[in-house]
Amino acid sequence: MATTQLEYARQGIITDKMKEAALAEGVSPEFIREGIAAGTIIICHNIKHGNGRPLAVGKGLRTKVNANIGTSADDTDITKELEKARVAVRHGADAIMDLSTGGPVDEIRRAIIAETNACIGSVPLYQAALDAVRTKKKAIVDMTVDDIFEGIIKHAEDGVDFITVHCGVTRSTVERMKNEGRLMDVVSRGGAFTVEWMAYNNCENPLFEHFDRLLEITKAYDMTLSLGDGFRPGCLADATDRAQIHELIILGELTQRAQAAGVQVMIEGPGHVPLNQIEANILLQKRLCHGAPFYVLGPLVTDIAPGYDHITCAIGGAIAASAGADFLCYVTPSEHLRLPSVEDVREGVIASRIAAHAADIAKGVKGAMEKDIAMAKCRKKLDWEGQFNLSLDPEKAQRLRAESGVAEHGACTMCGEFCAYKVMDDAMEKQRAAGH
Amino acid sequence: MATTQLEYARQGIITDKMKEAALAEGVSPEFIREGIAAGTIIICHNIKHGNGRPLAVGKGLRTKVNANIGTSADDTDITKELEKARVAVRHGADAIMDLSTGGPVDEIRRAIIAETNACIGSVPLYQAALDAVRTKKKAIVDMTVDDIFEGIIKHAEDGVDFITVHCGVTRSTVERMKNEGRLMDVVSRGGAFTVEWMAYNNCENPLFEHFDRLLEITKAYDMTLSLGDGFRPGCLADATDRAQIHELIILGELTQRAQAAGVQVMIEGPGHVPLNQIEANILLQKRLCHGAPFYVLGPLVTDIAPGYDHITCAIGGAIAASAGADFLCYVTPSEHLRLPSVEDVREGVIASRIAAHAADIAKGVKGAMEKDIAMAKCRKKLDWEGQFNLSLDPEKAQRLRAESGVAEHGACTMCGEFCAYKVMDDAMEKQRAAGH
Repeated sequence: MATTQLEYARQGIITDKMKEAALAEGVSPEFIREGIAAGTIIICHNIKHGNGRPLAVGKGLRTKVNANIGTSADDTDITKELEKARVAVRHGADAIMDLSTGGPVDEIRRAIIAETNACIGSVPLYQAALDAVRTKKKAIVDMTVDDIFEGIIKHAEDGVDFITVHCGVTRSTVERMKNEGRLMDVVSRGGAFTVEWMAYNNCENPLFEHFDRLLEITKAYDMTLSLGDGFRPGCLADATDRAQIHELIILGELTQRAQAAGVQVMIEGPGHVPLNQIEANILLQKRLCHGAPFYVLGPLVTDIAPGYDHITCAIGGAIAASAGADFLCYVTPSEHLRLPSVEDVREGVIASRIAAHAADIAKGVKGAMEKDIAMAKCRKKLDWEGQFNLSLDPEKAQRLRAESGVAEHGACTMCGEFCAYKVMDDAMEKQRAAGH
Repeated sequence: MATTQLEYARQGIITDKMKEAALAEGVSPEFIREGIAAGTIIICHNIKHGNGRPLAVGKGLRTKVNANIGTSADDTDITKELEKARVAVRHGADAIMDLSTGGPVDEIRRAIIAETNACIGSVPLYQAALDAVRTKKKAIVDMTVDDIFEGIIKHAEDGVDFITVHCGVTRSTVERMKNEGRLMDVVSRGGAFTVEWMAYNNCENPLFEHFDRLLEITKAYDMTLSLGDGFRPGCLADATDRAQIHELIILGELTQRAQAAGVQVMIEGPGHVPLNQIEANILLQKRLCHGAPFYVLGPLVTDIAPGYDHITCAIGGAIAASAGADFLCYVTPSEHLRLPSVEDVREGVIASRIAAHAADIAKGVKGAMEKDIAMAKCRKKLDWEGQFNLSLDPEKAQRLRAESGVAEHGACTMCGEFCAYKVMDDAMEKQRAAGH
């Protein structure tokens, strides 16, 4: 009997979730089914996520945006995180990852899941690490293999739709990184926990060694595996190095095993990457992982703009998505500086939506360019209501115009009576009147 | 006798301005001289601009950033514009264009020039249009050819370093636009004035027809011609159409004439352009204009993000500059909505500097990547002072971190004690201790 969307798709069955996703994307259910069967589309939806909507991610579909939220030990305010969840979804985030590591994380995760109907992701390794440190008063390295898998089951039971698992952090990739040398080593939190655990216990990564056990769990819930890039570069200088690419090869192999077992998979990608290396990174992922959906964190195209990493991320994300990345994880202005504020979340989501939409136009995603055409028509007519309605953030657009004082001429305070749209209308009128 | 840097360069003479520019760029004076002689580098500096620094723009050099400021009829506050000039330069703008069309524009222009030592640009056609409408109480179409040239001389006398002139708006390009049809016609203000004037007077564009007169004036001051793109697309749907490309061909021909006359030239470019058309736009400009420096306004990669056009601009600008554009005109969050505020100017400049720097890394501009490497080293050590000092906007980075409350663990409130940098240091220490 089939459990996962991948299994149904392979059997030629179009499920209700496929139909729902197809409707949201404006494509045919058969298009979705074919993509799932081929492993180039996933539907992220844990069968236990009662209030969640199935989210399709992958080839030929609208580029999706994820917002990371969650507490840390320094800031455990649950109401703020719930507000972030609402703000993220209101501004168009398709998914939310709860990365909480402070306060009552089980309670927080369940509250976040209950708060919206967005697709939910998490990193269950944090759970096991926290349980080891906070509950058992031990160290991260004292987690047992069972602790790690129990954390995963807990998240699956709560209805998490996709989990990041750093299965590609192996003895061989760690060795490669050490041999080549890096400026920033491992900057992925889950990756760093894993490396530390492996070093202390002198063991292989359990999520790699016991990958079949992982598949068994995720399959039972149709929870998507998001194969994490523990070796994602933490600075431009570390990008596209041997550790990163070797890990990607391993993730490609694991993708094949997961798909063979009927488990849906996507791949996580960098990180900090020079602009001219982004396209190659996407091509490599698509080739090495046989077209599996690609979920990128950024990429950030420079390291020297703390306070503006939503912009460094939007630049890299737009290029990545136009080259084939399917899912963008936002970055907020507070990245590298602090836990983001609610306002940071809003700015981060909008910046990534701009990147995703610009890429969708470039990729020819159905319906994307039509929005820009509609906006152009409203602009030409100086139809302000129409422009606001078509804006990614109508409230901000409206506010900026209102603050400037709206003048009688109907244009904006940039050009006023010398508005090019108005001048051109006059010019065209004059030409018509003159009969040429 | 030579007047312009182009003439000196062709004679094999390295001038003081070339030396000063070379020092600022970290290249040899001979590199600058060769580029100028080849027409791929310009030094923007009017011989009358006493307090101005020579600004080199072009192939192999750091990508430059311009900030547009200036009053409009709805907002004639001169002190605000001077504050914008200071803020723009403080945050790293290399040039300022004064586009004032409200209040005492002569006084404003001179005050802006006096305020900083940045390179200054303007659009003298506004001057003639304003004189016609405000001083002579006539219409834009009543400007005489002499009015237009007198405006140019006035700006040259004031020390303006580069002027935008829409010489490529000709009967043939207007005809092409009308035949093909456009959603937004002409959105360039100077372009629209020109089209209206041509329609009413049933004449060819005087800046095209009397191009030699223009060359004579600009040569006398070594004022750079910035050949404007009157047909720059005002929306994605109009990008890369026949009018735009035909105008670019004409600008290429005019570039050749200007350079033959010893006048320095750059070309202005779009505008609103889908992400996947940007590279082709740069390639076309470089080929059709024989490598002349390219100065782009954006390009904006989507039309639907009013309130965030500094971001749509940063995405397009980064791609354009990495493909070879030399000079980025910023766009502020207020674009399409109102005259920008001082804060908008700050945000716009930083966003464009991010784009320029990301592109400089991609292009391999000398010294660019070194900054990111230095930042990575400070990050790894959690050296916050070092990070702030290397930031594009130290004040904002510092403020965001300070607002979060700086904790004892030395990391940031995102991860706290679980900071990946710290965990990895522990892990590496454990590995060393274990002897593997």
